[in-house]
Amino acid sequence: MENKTLMTDFYELTMAQTYFDQGEKDKKAYFDVFFRESPFHGGYAIAGGLDGLVEYIKKFYISEEDIAYLRSLGNFTEDFLSYLKELKFSGDIYSVEDGTPVFPNEPVITVRANVIEAQLIETALLANFNHATLVTTAAKRITTAASGIPVMEFGARRARGIDSAIEASKYSYVGGCIGTSNVLAAKMYDIPVLGTMAHSMICDADNEYEAFLAYAKSNPNNCVFLVDTFDTLKSGIPNAIKVANDYLIPNNYPFKGIRIDSGDLAYLSKQARKLLDDAGYADAGICLSNGLNENTIKSLIDQGAYINSIGCGDNIAASLERIGGVYKLVAVEREAKLIPKIKVTNDIMKTINPGYKKVYRFYDKKTGYALGDVLALADEVIPEDGYTLISPTEEWKKTYISGYEVKNLQVLVFKNGKQVYEVPSIQERKLYCEEQFRTIYPEIKRSVNPHEYYVDLTENLLGLKKKLIRNSMNFVHS
Amino acid sequence: MENKTLMTDFYELTMAQTYFDQGEKDKKAYFDVFFRESPFHGGYAIAGGLDGLVEYIKKFYISEEDIAYLRSLGNFTEDFLSYLKELKFSGDIYSVEDGTPVFPNEPVITVRANVIEAQLIETALLANFNHATLVTTAAKRITTAASGIPVMEFGARRARGIDSAIEASKYSYVGGCIGTSNVLAAKMYDIPVLGTMAHSMICDADNEYEAFLAYAKSNPNNCVFLVDTFDTLKSGIPNAIKVANDYLIPNNYPFKGIRIDSGDLAYLSKQARKLLDDAGYADAGICLSNGLNENTIKSLIDQGAYINSIGCGDNIAASLERIGGVYKLVAVEREAKLIPKIKVTNDIMKTINPGYKKVYRFYDKKTGYALGDVLALADEVIPEDGYTLISPTEEWKKTYISGYEVKNLQVLVFKNGKQVYEVPSIQERKLYCEEQFRTIYPEIKRSVNPHEYYVDLTENLLGLKKKLIRNSMNFVHS
Repeated sequence: MENKTLMTDFYELTMAQTYFDQGEKDKKAYFDVFFRESPFHGGYAIAGGLDGLVEYIKKFYISEEDIAYLRSLGNFTEDFLSYLKELKFSGDIYSVEDGTPVFPNEPVITVRANVIEAQLIETALLANFNHATLVTTAAKRITTAASGIPVMEFGARRARGIDSAIEASKYSYVGGCIGTSNVLAAKMYDIPVLGTMAHSMICDADNEYEAFLAYAKSNPNNCVFLVDTFDTLKSGIPNAIKVANDYLIPNNYPFKGIRIDSGDLAYLSKQARKLLDDAGYADAGICLSNGLNENTIKSLIDQGAYINSIGCGDNIAASLERIGGVYKLVAVEREAKLIPKIKVTNDIMKTINPGYKKVYRFYDKKTGYALGDVLALADEVIPEDGYTLISPTEEWKKTYISGYEVKNLQVLVFKNGKQVYEVPSIQERKLYCEEQFRTIYPEIKRSVNPHEYYVDLTENLLGLKKKLIRNSMNFVHS
Repeated sequence: MENKTLMTDFYELTMAQTYFDQGEKDKKAYFDVFFRESPFHGGYAIAGGLDGLVEYIKKFYISEEDIAYLRSLGNFTEDFLSYLKELKFSGDIYSVEDGTPVFPNEPVITVRANVIEAQLIETALLANFNHATLVTTAAKRITTAASGIPVMEFGARRARGIDSAIEASKYSYVGGCIGTSNVLAAKMYDIPVLGTMAHSMICDADNEYEAFLAYAKSNPNNCVFLVDTFDTLKSGIPNAIKVANDYLIPNNYPFKGIRIDSGDLAYLSKQARKLLDDAGYADAGICLSNGLNENTIKSLIDQGAYINSIGCGDNIAASLERIGGVYKLVAVEREAKLIPKIKVTNDIMKTINPGYKKVYRFYDKKTGYALGDVLALADEVIPEDGYTLISPTEEWKKTYISGYEVKNLQVLVFKNGKQVYEVPSIQERKLYCEEQFRTIYPEIKRSVNPHEYYVDLTENLLGLKKKLIRNSMNFVHS
């Protein structure tokens, strides 16, 4: 089951048949991928999923078996099926790089392709983008809440299936986790693999000391004892200390620490710290886990809990949020002329930004901070010396900026169907993500009520948008 | 990337090394999979994922490449690595069948295997179970809310990755959807494939009538027009009717209907019904979509909306819920003797049910309704003529039942590592799910404040549980 090309919505094919019959199969269409609101009521998302996208596009191919299936549905003409059989993705894909902070309503990915190809890839592209971006963002938010305390990704068992778990482990590392418990993901992407021990082993042994000792003998360099099976303070920590005294230290192994997975973590961590310190193990770390999320992590820190590391499961790999990335037609080419497209929604100012566009980000030359983004028509030139940002919804709000460096945020990933961009390694993406995240003002990154990052339109683009909205209204009311 | 055996948490391996070093690799351990609360604040879940489990277990194999990776970590002995290289899953797996309504704290899956094997499969087993069960349950709840109105699964683009989408489409069908828009899932599992059209095609054409007409000509037997691109009542429906009049009907094609994807669906559907009826198209259906969930579907029905079908995306394939299935040690064998195990939690009565158990369901012979489940020790015999159900948390609550048929809910899926159960087809599972769902009292299936289904323990099991809790307490306080 390696060919996943048909992971597409059926209407992409019925529309494709229509385009084909209309002789429009080679018409170039432009689609933007964007989201309308940042997840977690936050001020940003972190783009993810470029490797998954590249893999899908490179393997895009409708097999004989697929054709036989499609034929059996009785909806498609033989001419069209023959066309599908030969189909490869031959278009261009621009994308923001993985790890980049991105904001509502800006094109994270832009596809320019024959309309049938562009439509057929929509579903898989979005499923991949939505998952990867959500996980990367969740990891970034949780590691940000942890304020430098290392966060380990432990969520594979709670993910949405086995493959989804592998992807979650990968993107959580890009988003800021220091490693994962998922051995396969660690192996595939060269991510640090981490873990402690499970309650089952201690329950099995009945005797906590014996269980710890056996584990220590077999894993002498990796001893983080899970201390909450019976009683964290009365049994778990004393037994961990005893094993350190009896076995680890006499044999020159480190006593790495303990993990607490239940109970009042703030209270227990403080008492644990005292017990460990009093026993002479100031270096033994305290790992906390148990459904931790941004709020509980912040609260633990506020309460002065002692935390050396955090294990995070559900809330990264299976967070209860969505990105809701969409894929919208923004332009077509007719006789080599670019025709911008729009879909007017009930809330008119929430209407999509039309046209073939570029996203530019302004970085303050002095501070390095990102001042804002501007969406421009693809052929516009952004001045390098000074620029007036105009709010797209409140035009009287103008901000003149200068002393910036401006960056075209999207890179060309596929050119005429050929991959022209090498997706950086997971490690490189992680570093890039950290670096780019530092360019975002703290007010935007605030977990509650963040300031809204500027995503503005050039005057040309705003003018075009207004004109298209007006035309569309005329159309409706004519 | 076909071998996913290592999709396991690292601690499974460090514990395995420990068991190996202790000479306990062949010790039989028993693990139960269960969840603690029904998702969606509901009264039930629907078990799913047996095919995924079978596939994982059958392919369980640690390759040379995996071994090389594990060796590189420096944690494992060569003896242990040699052992892993030869390892196959050789245990027994019992499971409730896919599509069965299941309830908190009862073992949906029970694994009896050499402890190392049993631990190594935990992570993938849970990721698969949690995803499949969540989707099946979400689909069952939404289709139940729809009270017989067909629900189509449209959520692939919102799922947690491409593979997760395929699984979601599959299990949503088991849970009650009539089909999916996901072409690959439809092909793989012989599920009806469904779809309408997208806004992009209409935006592209500018002229809604021309777009509808072109679509109708290419898909004359599949005409459900998306009517909300410009103005549902003033433009979309009149244009759909015009295409029916001008093309479909004169050519003996059916006018299947319209889809409304935005705006006030209750109001619009009523107006739409009138417009269609007035034009002589009482048979043209109205499909509603737009982030519909249980509540909005119920509300639409309450308001008397006209709905012939529902397209459901996010809330099945990417529902904001979790099952939180866990995998807990319940027994081990020592010298062929079964030793029950327990892990006492802070809330003592929420402590897991210990021992190697069976789940029995009592069905009323007259009505067919399920009267309750009882968890029994594996060697207990449940009387066929009369039985007293005892609440495990409130022992004074006793209910005598008779005139029932009793069913052992779990089937043996693997025996000594050999698959001995053929997972029924998706279609069979769907029918089985419907049939079993009908056996559950409506009060249990109620969407808000459902009555709690009885999941009781036999006197023997309850006695054992109390004894183990007592012993465990003594241990802690000794």
